Amino acid sequence: MTIKDVARHCGVSVSTVSRVLNNKPDVSGAVREKVLKAVKELNFVPNGSARDLVSPISDAVGIVFRGDSSPFYMGIIGAMEKVFSEAGFTTVVENVRHGQDELWAGAGLARSKRLRGLAFLGGRFDYTPEDIEKLDVPFVCCTYTNSFGRLSADSYSSVTIDDIKTGYEAAMKLIERGHKRIAVVMSNVDDRSIGELRYMGYRKALEDSGIALDPALLIEAGEYSMAAVKVAVEKAVDDGLDFTAVFAVSDILAIAVMKALSNKDLRVPEDCSVLGVDGLEMASYMVPSLSTLAQPTEELGEKGARVLLDMIKNGSPGSHTVLSTSFVPGGSIAEI
Amino acid sequence: MTIKDVARHCGVSVSTVSRVLNNKPDVSGAVREKVLKAVKELNFVPNGSARDLVSPISDAVGIVFRGDSSPFYMGIIGAMEKVFSEAGFTTVVENVRHGQDELWAGAGLARSKRLRGLAFLGGRFDYTPEDIEKLDVPFVCCTYTNSFGRLSADSYSSVTIDDIKTGYEAAMKLIERGHKRIAVVMSNVDDRSIGELRYMGYRKALEDSGIALDPALLIEAGEYSMAAVKVAVEKAVDDGLDFTAVFAVSDILAIAVMKALSNKDLRVPEDCSVLGVDGLEMASYMVPSLSTLAQPTEELGEKGARVLLDMIKNGSPGSHTVLSTSFVPGGSIAEI
Repeated sequence: MTIKDVARHCGVSVSTVSRVLNNKPDVSGAVREKVLKAVKELNFVPNGSARDLVSPISDAVGIVFRGDSSPFYMGIIGAMEKVFSEAGFTTVVENVRHGQDELWAGAGLARSKRLRGLAFLGGRFDYTPEDIEKLDVPFVCCTYTNSFGRLSADSYSSVTIDDIKTGYEAAMKLIERGHKRIAVVMSNVDDRSIGELRYMGYRKALEDSGIALDPALLIEAGEYSMAAVKVAVEKAVDDGLDFTAVFAVSDILAIAVMKALSNKDLRVPEDCSVLGVDGLEMASYMVPSLSTLAQPTEELGEKGARVLLDMIKNGSPGSHTVLSTSFVPGGSIAEI
Repeated sequence: MTIKDVARHCGVSVSTVSRVLNNKPDVSGAVREKVLKAVKELNFVPNGSARDLVSPISDAVGIVFRGDSSPFYMGIIGAMEKVFSEAGFTTVVENVRHGQDELWAGAGLARSKRLRGLAFLGGRFDYTPEDIEKLDVPFVCCTYTNSFGRLSADSYSSVTIDDIKTGYEAAMKLIERGHKRIAVVMSNVDDRSIGELRYMGYRKALEDSGIALDPALLIEAGEYSMAAVKVAVEKAVDDGLDFTAVFAVSDILAIAVMKALSNKDLRVPEDCSVLGVDGLEMASYMVPSLSTLAQPTEELGEKGARVLLDMIKNGSPGSHTVLSTSFVPGGSIAEI
């Protein structure tokens, strides 16, 4: 069974079948349907290598994501694939696991699959020009920036929220409700990542509100996991730490905070308010529902994909887009 | 920068570097470390295509998973990759999205990457011999079986829990605690998947316990989503359905059930017990913690990988392994 058999069966040209299989836009809906039906009936499986031989330039882009935080990334991947597919590109998704370097994984993927570009979902905030030398395709950092690195702005693109501002707004949501003793929960304060940036925002909010910073209110779990956060918050309560609210730097960690407080017989929000960041679907199913600053998941994906396509197709230099979070009020915060 | 430069730099042969890059076991730890260090320092990125040319037989296997239920599958993927890597195989992971056929995706992946075998994580329970004709490599169904299909037992492998028995045990856990009015929550009772099988087990448990089956206690959400389940359970309460416990066919759905009950001012477990299946990490962070029948995630992955390797390397016929769930008691169930 070859592509020629499919073409003969449908009474169309091989190149039409090829355009349908490659998801190109210039085929009418009726023809597209006929071809896809025949492909299914004839049990024809497109052969990636043969297809590559036909079109000298690959039409594939890669998405490299860190599996640790998958619930948040799944929505972004879906939005990206939609844009890539509409532009006639196929998408290769690679899951980078704990301890593996995303640039390394991306570089290998780009070469072996002859990708035209890469979208990284999550990664280090401190790339150097030497780090990215191994990448010979344009790339976009989605959900993170090079805040602690040394890349020139036009050598890469980013689409992200403003992490410092997000930390600021999170603290303000709690300060507005009368809280002054606000604990911050994260893995490590000097993680050169979202934790460090959002803590900067938190400090600024306190300063702007005339509240003295108490370093004791910083609860570092040592690692980015629910288990470590639960232990750290339970210990803080046992140690008699005095706080009326918690800002957790992500929803996953906030859910662990709620569990720790419950284990210590503290009620949310009566005894302690809890606020997260991300806007996970799961957050709205907590009892009480978790208040969160939601990332614009679809917009991050769509914009990230469009920026990358612009670099690939038009050779545009890197661009940097900052999107806003939106406050999703829930039952987990209250006035005091 | 080529593989020869790396070999020269380390004072070893090209084939030694190749064996390290391909993760073959027959290289000493010291040499392996030296090569990997050089690869990193020299910024050398292995070229997949060139590597394929060197070794005529590919050493790659594929894992095809359905993204919808990712939290449960992540642990299985990790366990599989470990086994494949120790056996000298590289792993390609592909995420199949809603509405896409997993066999189709797997067949395309196997051809374009010249895979030696495939592991499917989640899929249809009703494959026909014609369906699998397009697969020209051995495969294992991990977490599901061909209960409603027509495959010969030796044409494929499976590693799974016994879904009927799991439904039986779940109902028994609630019956043992005095419950007689046990609602069952799933997408559709005739889904030819876990829902249908686990409901069979539930019915058997009632029968064995002398409890009459009440079809009204079957709550079908119409689709497998938290949102649909929440609406369906809230409606059941509004309609005055009388039940003292809920068996949800998965943890994700059980979490949505707990939210729906809370929205209707029903306390868990005082007014209603809730039990799930899967053993997600998230289940233990619910308030109260969700009782669940935990799937043996690591064992499913390890055994699935070993069975597939046995088919690939030794040409073994399909085999079918059934593993047990373990009961994880939580605060969400109580005696009445």
